[in-house]
Amino acid sequence: MSAFPPATHDVFALDQLLTDEEKEIKYRTRAFMEREVAPIIADYWERAEFPHELVPKLAKLRLGGATLKGNGCPGQSLVGAAMAVIEIARVDGSMSTFLMVHNSLAMLTIGLLGSEEQKTQLLPRMATLESVAAWALTEPSNGSDASALTTSAKKVEGGWELNGKKRWIGNATFAEWIVIWARRADTGDVNAFLVKKGTPGLQTRKIENKIALRCVQNADIRLESCWVPDSARLPGVNSFKDTNVVLAISRIMVAWQPVGLAMGVYDMANRYLRQREQFGNPLAAYQINQEKLQRMLGNIQAMTLMAWRLSKLYEQGKLDHATSAMTKAWNTLRGREVMALGRELLGGNGVVSDFLVAKSFNDMEAIFTYEGTYEVNALVAGRQATGIAAFKALPKKGK
Amino acid sequence: MSAFPPATHDVFALDQLLTDEEKEIKYRTRAFMEREVAPIIADYWERAEFPHELVPKLAKLRLGGATLKGNGCPGQSLVGAAMAVIEIARVDGSMSTFLMVHNSLAMLTIGLLGSEEQKTQLLPRMATLESVAAWALTEPSNGSDASALTTSAKKVEGGWELNGKKRWIGNATFAEWIVIWARRADTGDVNAFLVKKGTPGLQTRKIENKIALRCVQNADIRLESCWVPDSARLPGVNSFKDTNVVLAISRIMVAWQPVGLAMGVYDMANRYLRQREQFGNPLAAYQINQEKLQRMLGNIQAMTLMAWRLSKLYEQGKLDHATSAMTKAWNTLRGREVMALGRELLGGNGVVSDFLVAKSFNDMEAIFTYEGTYEVNALVAGRQATGIAAFKALPKKGK
Amino acid sequence: MSAFPPATHDVFALDQLLTDEEKEIKYRTRAFMEREVAPIIADYWERAEFPHELVPKLAKLRLGGATLKGNGCPGQSLVGAAMAVIEIARVDGSMSTFLMVHNSLAMLTIGLLGSEEQKTQLLPRMATLESVAAWALTEPSNGSDASALTTSAKKVEGGWELNGKKRWIGNATFAEWIVIWARRADTGDVNAFLVKKGTPGLQTRKIENKIALRCVQNADIRLESCWVPDSARLPGVNSFKDTNVVLAISRIMVAWQPVGLAMGVYDMANRYLRQREQFGNPLAAYQINQEKLQRMLGNIQAMTLMAWRLSKLYEQGKLDHATSAMTKAWNTLRGREVMALGRELLGGNGVVSDFLVAKSFNDMEAIFTYEGTYEVNALVAGRQATGIAAFKALPKKGK
Amino acid sequence: MSAFPPATHDVFALDQLLTDEEKEIKYRTRAFMEREVAPIIADYWERAEFPHELVPKLAKLRLGGATLKGNGCPGQSLVGAAMAVIEIARVDGSMSTFLMVHNSLAMLTIGLLGSEEQKTQLLPRMATLESVAAWALTEPSNGSDASALTTSAKKVEGGWELNGKKRWIGNATFAEWIVIWARRADTGDVNAFLVKKGTPGLQTRKIENKIALRCVQNADIRLESCWVPDSARLPGVNSFKDTNVVLAISRIMVAWQPVGLAMGVYDMANRYLRQREQFGNPLAAYQINQEKLQRMLGNIQAMTLMAWRLSKLYEQGKLDHATSAMTKAWNTLRGREVMALGRELLGGNGVVSDFLVAKSFNDMEAIFTYEGTYEVNALVAGRQATGIAAFKALPKKGK
Ligand SMILES: Cc1cc2nc3c(=O)[nH]c(=O)nc-3n(C[C@H](O)[C@H](O)[C@H](O)COP(=O)(O)OP(=O)(O)OC[C@H]3O[C@@H](n4cnc5c(N)ncnc54)[C@H](O)[C@@H]3O)c2cc1C
Ligand SMILES: Cc1cc2nc3c(=O)[nH]c(=O)nc-3n(C[C@H](O)[C@H](O)[C@H](O)COP(=O)(O)OP(=O)(O)OC[C@H]3O[C@@H](n4cnc5c(N)ncnc54)[C@H](O)[C@@H]3O)c2cc1C
Ligand SMILES: Cc1cc2nc3c(=O)[nH]c(=O)nc-3n(C[C@H](O)[C@H](O)[C@H](O)COP(=O)(O)OP(=O)(O)OC[C@H]3O[C@@H](n4cnc5c(N)ncnc54)[C@H](O)[C@@H]3O)c2cc1C
Ligand SMILES: Cc1cc2nc3c(=O)[nH]c(=O)nc-3n(C[C@H](O)[C@H](O)[C@H](O)COP(=O)(O)OP(=O)(O)OC[C@H]3O[C@@H](n4cnc5c(N)ncnc54)[C@H](O)[C@@H]3O)c2cc1C
Repeated sequence: MSAFPPATHDVFALDQLLTDEEKEIKYRTRAFMEREVAPIIADYWERAEFPHELVPKLAKLRLGGATLKGNGCPGQSLVGAAMAVIEIARVDGSMSTFLMVHNSLAMLTIGLLGSEEQKTQLLPRMATLESVAAWALTEPSNGSDASALTTSAKKVEGGWELNGKKRWIGNATFAEWIVIWARRADTGDVNAFLVKKGTPGLQTRKIENKIALRCVQNADIRLESCWVPDSARLPGVNSFKDTNVVLAISRIMVAWQPVGLAMGVYDMANRYLRQREQFGNPLAAYQINQEKLQRMLGNIQAMTLMAWRLSKLYEQGKLDHATSAMTKAWNTLRGREVMALGRELLGGNGVVSDFLVAKSFNDMEAIFTYEGTYEVNALVAGRQATGIAAFKALPKKGK
Repeated sequence: MSAFPPATHDVFALDQLLTDEEKEIKYRTRAFMEREVAPIIADYWERAEFPHELVPKLAKLRLGGATLKGNGCPGQSLVGAAMAVIEIARVDGSMSTFLMVHNSLAMLTIGLLGSEEQKTQLLPRMATLESVAAWALTEPSNGSDASALTTSAKKVEGGWELNGKKRWIGNATFAEWIVIWARRADTGDVNAFLVKKGTPGLQTRKIENKIALRCVQNADIRLESCWVPDSARLPGVNSFKDTNVVLAISRIMVAWQPVGLAMGVYDMANRYLRQREQFGNPLAAYQINQEKLQRMLGNIQAMTLMAWRLSKLYEQGKLDHATSAMTKAWNTLRGREVMALGRELLGGNGVVSDFLVAKSFNDMEAIFTYEGTYEVNALVAGRQATGIAAFKALPKKGK
Repeated sequence: MSAFPPATHDVFALDQLLTDEEKEIKYRTRAFMEREVAPIIADYWERAEFPHELVPKLAKLRLGGATLKGNGCPGQSLVGAAMAVIEIARVDGSMSTFLMVHNSLAMLTIGLLGSEEQKTQLLPRMATLESVAAWALTEPSNGSDASALTTSAKKVEGGWELNGKKRWIGNATFAEWIVIWARRADTGDVNAFLVKKGTPGLQTRKIENKIALRCVQNADIRLESCWVPDSARLPGVNSFKDTNVVLAISRIMVAWQPVGLAMGVYDMANRYLRQREQFGNPLAAYQINQEKLQRMLGNIQAMTLMAWRLSKLYEQGKLDHATSAMTKAWNTLRGREVMALGRELLGGNGVVSDFLVAKSFNDMEAIFTYEGTYEVNALVAGRQATGIAAFKALPKKGK
Repeated sequence: MSAFPPATHDVFALDQLLTDEEKEIKYRTRAFMEREVAPIIADYWERAEFPHELVPKLAKLRLGGATLKGNGCPGQSLVGAAMAVIEIARVDGSMSTFLMVHNSLAMLTIGLLGSEEQKTQLLPRMATLESVAAWALTEPSNGSDASALTTSAKKVEGGWELNGKKRWIGNATFAEWIVIWARRADTGDVNAFLVKKGTPGLQTRKIENKIALRCVQNADIRLESCWVPDSARLPGVNSFKDTNVVLAISRIMVAWQPVGLAMGVYDMANRYLRQREQFGNPLAAYQINQEKLQRMLGNIQAMTLMAWRLSKLYEQGKLDHATSAMTKAWNTLRGREVMALGRELLGGNGVVSDFLVAKSFNDMEAIFTYEGTYEVNALVAGRQATGIAAFKALPKKGK
């Protein structure tokens, strides 16, 4: 299937809510994605390979660093950064995740919690994507309950010795730098360390057989007596709570991802239904199909507004984690509905990734699950609404 | 059950999107509803009676006329009018529909399509609710396809003779004025007429046994050689299309109704779950209940933003019927989900209307269906997206 | 609306799975319900009154006692009793619940756990419905966690003194006998007592404003120093566990109720859609409506088979509570979907109880909630599948 | 991941509904699948390759030919054949589809509509899987509306010349025989022809990039002046209606496929949740997870009973296409729900195909769509319930 379908999803005039700069990011990114990525990405996805050839081209879009200012970073507004996220995700979820991990997890951690030296040394080359970064929090035994992480950091002569396992770490097979979250052997507090590719004691193994975000190279990591110098420690991280300053932004970006996926799937399904005929009429003529299209369209407007409002609250310093968690959860729930509707609307072609919809249908599953699963985010938000943490064992009373 | 629960639904800071006047309408209406209506309305609902005692009090809120300017009307902004709609619906769907029919169907038709004389004569007393109005489009055989209406208007000496049947007409059993939509015997075009209570040939019969909006008095109307003077004809109405200028606004108001219902149900459920204990913990402590609360909360934010954005587009003159139809449909779909969740969260008390939730659960069903059913609105919107009217028979094409 | 619609729901030939006797019960009950009950029940439902006039006629159907043998009871097979349940529920949920409470809760408790004397004295008149019974387990503060009941029974001279409150007790406003579950002051064990209408210290107050099963008279009960003789105690009940022998059967009957409601709603919607026209075609011609009808139909077949299989396992002595709980939960989930679909298919007439669908739509909500809510049944079943009781606080581990 | 999880899904004692022979097929197939297929299939699925190595082993199970009698076929009962279908699908959807296409489409067409000669020549080697068959109805432009097929068959000297395109044809890249459905140039009637691998003018091209049933080799077929001898024509096929005798059985088999997928996913999720811990408890301890498990379990019982009842009605000669279509549609709807629940329950591991669930989640999508999509089956069934074919343009009626 040839050119990417025109954008027909925006019936609520999103541009009105954007600054000129944000609009510019949106259309700049869209043009790139439709022209450079759409024609080639399905093959990479099928082979579960990362499209390294696209990195230099992507670099020219100047999206590296996103909301960070200085050190070569573009200092985008939050909504501006989000426009890049959705336009990339509209065409490909993997590329969107690749950049989200690099920008809104790894670079952001360095930018917000690193030393001046770390920033000036690393960020400029990361902003140009010459250096790609990864961010390693999750462990094989600690996913939803990441705060229970057991990777350890022992203070040794001139540095730290890291031991433990990480799982699911995006970009980690080829990233130059990996931010490793570990627990200090002395205090028990969580710290973070920059570990460079090739450091002795660091092993990364690609996770095979994923059905979602197949271009993203997720790794199982093993750290065995992995020594890093004192300068590798991020001075801004002194406890697990310090992840929050990063996750506050990254979760917003993740809440935008389903918006982008949904836009692309709608655009594709809309065109498909108008072009294909069965029983003497275009598929778009049939009631069942029209209702699905409209449900998708309504969901997209709502998801967009949810993520936009979340971003605005953040910009005003009025966002709390609960609201962010609720929105991430909600957007992935509706995003999943859009994907399923799009998938079925394409019939048999809905199971072939070249038609985009099958690919996004699968990619959505990962987003439903990462940065806190739907359920765990709902319970994190629920804790605030009720005052009770239901994801843990409840206090046993009486009787 | 004591006082109405505090508002805990607004995690997206809706007030930020409102002008001072709009906020003032919101809190003025909320105070009235919580204080005057909440304590007494369940009984009226149970008895399926209209709470006439509340009308003079409601009048003092100066909501009559809503967006209309002049002739005693308050000239609210669209969003201001919507704030009244949601705050009324938060406590009671029937009152919200009573006023919506009066303001955004009947008065609006007069205000936008009536003569100067009609306006100056009728609107002032309607603005103070001394005179209540009804609006009669639907017929027993023409519901979703209202444009096929068959009530006839024959030109006779000094006036018009109306014949036919109407169904579902809210407020009509006691309204002073009913706007009757009828087809001219001569031209076949649709016109509209003001028919006064007590006019010979006009019979109204209350529709009994409703499960929804039980305080709203819906009537079956019979017009038998019902004569009205020339001055009863609304000069602005010359074809069925002229309903659109009214429905453009009323549909937005209807899209706000589920928002209000949902807010009330959330507030009630949230308080209930924190107060009631089972198995040694507040119900709010249980995961299944927390996930439902959060799903409700997310839906409410999304529904609010959808209706808000719709209103803003209208204010800019950028709204088309398709988008309006899509939004009404979408908001009722999510509204229904919120009602069902609230209903089940209250357990047995969820089937008793005093706890509000059961009442709103039922009221929602009418809103799902009126001003165009969910399905018909989806197909109206779908026509624009696809260029094909799927609610009618499709053109048959050769094999 | 004229005669009750013909049965068109049975595409899986249920009769093949029935004995001749079971079929006979089914058609006998159906004829009665369509002829005697359908024409008059909506008015009772609207007024929230019990149709006492129907009791003598119902008595002639010889359904009283259901599965009990002897003492004037018909000794129906479980599936035979179920056929009465579904055929009654097909026309009216309230009547079905009235009889279910009488037969499968109250009489069954007496029949299975009463003394010979209690049985011979009470059951014959109950079998003929001359004497109606109620069954009181739930309390205001103990619903889902009924086992925490606090109504107390103190041994006194020649009998017992009962104190406490019960809530939701069906039939209790007029029943001759109420089975009261209470905790012995001495041992703390749960026992059961037969309390006769008019006993000093027993007060029943009708719960008003229900939206569901409005003909069923549910009561709030207050027991204040209510003395009953030694002979009032059911000797078979010595602990809370003894409720299980009754609930094992009643839960199966409740699992059949949504089947009956769904059958009636499908039959009604199917006829309605074929008769009513909009946009030049019968509503039945439109895709969206056909898909809904088919989803309803599929659900009905599945629900029927689920309840049938449950009954068969019980008859073989192979049923455990977990499977029963799962099936009750599942059937109410699908039943609720059928009700919602039927409700929307009837458009405006779907909110008027005369058209049956609105009534069943509401009645379903009570069934979703009683005999264990959907959620609590799911968790009861889940305990067996996982070995962990998630409805209670989990044991707190480590950390 | 070690051995395939034990079967914990059967709480309704399915074995009771089976003959000894049917049970034997079930356990024979299960043992094979768990032992031989489970450990190796994820890799084939990932590479989108057919596991030819398994064919000789599978052959030993003597499932080839399924319900056909004679010519080396096992003459299984319908339910017996279904037991093989579900046990294969429980471990792998692709293998199940491979065999379903071979047995219940291709061999069945030959067995029911072929000449004696065709049967004796082809069936014995097909029964032993030495010869694999494919079945080609769908075309690029005719999917849901297969009856509009345009592949043509022109009578020529000593045989027929076939021209046209087919799409989606399972097994066709390596099958020895392909049943091709084509329209006779002379009469316009649909006939069927046996085309052998390697016949000049027959080209098959594998459809790449599928996300579902990746081991099944689906082909785009091109027939260009492809000559086949007179003996290639199936004498039993004289019109499109003759597909029905085959589809009557194959659709039942397809209705069983989601049952098998769901059983496997449940078994896997159930074990996973009991083994993995987060926040100090096994995942199985959390309410949200238990409710999902139970919903899956209920669905599985219902889906099993639906397919079983369908099979029984067929065996009695009492099944019509509408009921079959409804059941296929319904089972895929619920199957999809089970897949989604299983997928989310496994968290991140739910997107890796080695854990089975991700694979089945994807495979389900194809089954939702093939043998008539969900929607088209619902409308085919709806036609019978309403008398109106809504999948075609409706007759346009006068205003
Ligand atoms: C494609 C992909 C990319 C990722 N990239 C990164 C990355 O770059 N860096 C990184 O650090 N991590 C990454 N992750 C990890 C991700 O954040 C985790 O997968 C996620 O937090 C869920 O953890 P889990 O997979 O261990 O699931 P689990 O925690 O095992 O959850 C399994 C199931 O149990 C439920 N559950 C868990 N706890 C509870 C509870 N208390 N109550 C009720 N239900 C519960 C969950 O909702 C879920 O349904 C990635 C994951 C994926 C799939
Ligand atoms: C409580 C209440 C108050 C009301 N107040 C007023 C009032 O004040 N004034 C007034 O004029 N009207 C009023 N109405 C009428 C209301 O607008 C109609 O009920 C509504 O338009 C639906 O029409 P119907 O009830 O005839 O349903 P129908 O049109 O008969 O629809 C029945 C079902 O068929 C579906 N359907 C219909 N056509 C199609 C199609 N072409 N394709 C697919 N599906 C289709 C519908 O979606 C619905 O599910 C009120 C209604 C209610 C219930
Ligand atoms: C119409 C009607 C008729 C009835 N008839 C009778 C009768 O004749 N005799 C009789 O004895 N009783 C009767 N009942 C009572 C019925 O059995 C209870 O309503 C039911 O058990 C639920 O209890 P509850 O209403 O107190 O809800 P609650 O227990 O307060 O539940 C409220 C909500 O919390 C949820 N919840 C509760 N506990 C948990 C938990 N641990 N984890 C997660 N969620 C939880 C529930 O699922 C529900 O959503 C009747 C009820 C109704 C509505
Ligand atoms: C993995 C796989 C294996 C297959 N194997 C075989 C095989 O071995 N042999 C074979 O012959 N075929 C095979 N098929 C083809 C399969 O039968 C078709 O895919 C199926 O019939 C749907 O056709 P389609 O893909 O062209 O979808 P379309 O017909 O284009 O349908 C697209 C969408 O439109 C909807 N739609 C279509 N018509 C209407 C209507 N009138 N009203 C409302 N909605 C409508 C559909 O429900 C669907 O959502 C296979 C397909 C797949 C995916």
